[in-house]
Amino acid sequence: MLDKKKTIAVIGGAEPSPEEARLAEEVGRELARRGAILVCGGLGGVMEAACKGASSEGGVTIGILPGDNSRSANSYVQIPIVTGIGYARNVAVVKSAQAVIAVGGSYGTLSEIGHALQSSIPVIGLNTWSLSRNGQPDNSIILAQNPAEAVAKALNLVTD
Amino acid sequence: MLDKKKTIAVIGGAEPSPEEARLAEEVGRELARRGAILVCGGLGGVMEAACKGASSEGGVTIGILPGDNSRSANSYVQIPIVTGIGYARNVAVVKSAQAVIAVGGSYGTLSEIGHALQSSIPVIGLNTWSLSRNGQPDNSIILAQNPAEAVAKALNLVTD
Amino acid sequence: MLDKKKTIAVIGGAEPSPEEARLAEEVGRELARRGAILVCGGLGGVMEAACKGASSEGGVTIGILPGDNSRSANSYVQIPIVTGIGYARNVAVVKSAQAVIAVGGSYGTLSEIGHALQSSIPVIGLNTWSLSRNGQPDNSIILAQNPAEAVAKALNLVTD
Amino acid sequence: MLDKKKTIAVIGGAEPSPEEARLAEEVGRELARRGAILVCGGLGGVMEAACKGASSEGGVTIGILPGDNSRSANSYVQIPIVTGIGYARNVAVVKSAQAVIAVGGSYGTLSEIGHALQSSIPVIGLNTWSLSRNGQPDNSIILAQNPAEAVAKALNLVTD
Repeated sequence: MLDKKKTIAVIGGAEPSPEEARLAEEVGRELARRGAILVCGGLGGVMEAACKGASSEGGVTIGILPGDNSRSANSYVQIPIVTGIGYARNVAVVKSAQAVIAVGGSYGTLSEIGHALQSSIPVIGLNTWSLSRNGQPDNSIILAQNPAEAVAKALNLVTD
Repeated sequence: MLDKKKTIAVIGGAEPSPEEARLAEEVGRELARRGAILVCGGLGGVMEAACKGASSEGGVTIGILPGDNSRSANSYVQIPIVTGIGYARNVAVVKSAQAVIAVGGSYGTLSEIGHALQSSIPVIGLNTWSLSRNGQPDNSIILAQNPAEAVAKALNLVTD
Repeated sequence: MLDKKKTIAVIGGAEPSPEEARLAEEVGRELARRGAILVCGGLGGVMEAACKGASSEGGVTIGILPGDNSRSANSYVQIPIVTGIGYARNVAVVKSAQAVIAVGGSYGTLSEIGHALQSSIPVIGLNTWSLSRNGQPDNSIILAQNPAEAVAKALNLVTD
Repeated sequence: MLDKKKTIAVIGGAEPSPEEARLAEEVGRELARRGAILVCGGLGGVMEAACKGASSEGGVTIGILPGDNSRSANSYVQIPIVTGIGYARNVAVVKSAQAVIAVGGSYGTLSEIGHALQSSIPVIGLNTWSLSRNGQPDNSIILAQNPAEAVAKALNLVTD
């Protein structure tokens, strides 16, 4: 049975380092073990690694795709959403989740962090961006030391 | 097990006639019986009736919502996608499916029919719009006489 | 001086008949003569013909593009808006206008007619779609016999 | 005459400090003096201050609005684009420009910086976010000390 109240987005780049891919896969596994639905951007890299991990533990994976065709989804996406709206789909990725886990990531990930924080959706970070504004650190991204801690923090933040 | 190759959109208005609601619910039931995933706009009316029908037969229901919050989903949506893009989400509803079944419907449904046909996604119609252009009938909407026929025609059109 | 209260969308296909292109160009000219801003989807065909007509009379032309680059705009677009959201930009084309003039058109135009009528934005039709629902004609599209009449009807509907 | 090859986005928050508002207004003035078109998100705060500045020097101002109605535009927007797609419009704001000037800003601005850098659109920063990734500074945001320098850097980056 799907528990839609525990949907967690995993965001990160299409070209992760091997370590980032490993972290993302373990995040996916841990989300599945804890009964959460994984939502992501549906493509390769961190998105694929996370979906692979979740699938290996019997979890549900949603991929919200930028393009016009479900064939662009990585092979571990069970539910492809074909938006056709390009990177504006980043908004839907984060809004469809109760919390976001960022693993590494480049500028697309940065845009998703911005959209999530703008919508008051908590962001947990693993080896990702850190922010400061006018020289003052912004600590909105909640740091985690490892995948299990990231998932635990994300699920603790989900309001029942 | 989800078979994402059989995802069918059900489109129609938020304020259907009782007959349209009955048709939509039966479309949902039949889709679930035949193992298809139902995708819709996630709100009330035809969308809710179709999700209710699918849920009653153990089917999977996806609701691609226009607003900023999953609470706007009808209670039979198992997988809410929160787009935040308003009625531009109509594009995602049809693009996420291999075929579309229109039940009744108003102008939002008409826009979805246009988007589907523009993307060469077949549309099956039950008591819905009919079109002509420059005085010539356009027969792109495939007519069905009842929900079972609509679902059969939709699934026959899905390419494996 | 731009009078943003008179912004009229011209919608229609990328592959018009010669007659449709002629009508669109004259619609553009007439809009410019009457001081209205023209907004369109920014690409070729009806969109280009309308922008060409407006430009020839010193009018202002806005093109709301589906893709990622302003180079896709026709050469008569003065103000290209680059959305990157594909055909979901159809919503923005009609919402940015106080009235819509449809010239010919295919399924993309049909989707724009649906979005406009859903948002209570009046649609004037020249050789375009006609609609019926459940066998009953829907007369929401206001018919015009020629470009001057189409523009006159559109501007009359704009609330000051 | 509009020179669409010099369209610069000004991004920043709806609730700027007085100093940020002053900077944004001067950025707008300087853009207009140098013949550039100003595009922004069309609302209040930094967006309004920049439009006010540009208008005071006879410049052209475009506001790409998130909502469903042009009435939400600040009073200095000459060309309102009504997208109806919420904060997904942030993508269109930056993609419609050849360079972006960020003045202060909160998380929405951060998302726009991410979208711009993802699309290889240069970002010039005035009292805005600074970024680091995995503990390494990311210097993609080009720093400027004052509005004139920000505008000069932006226009120098525009490829003819």
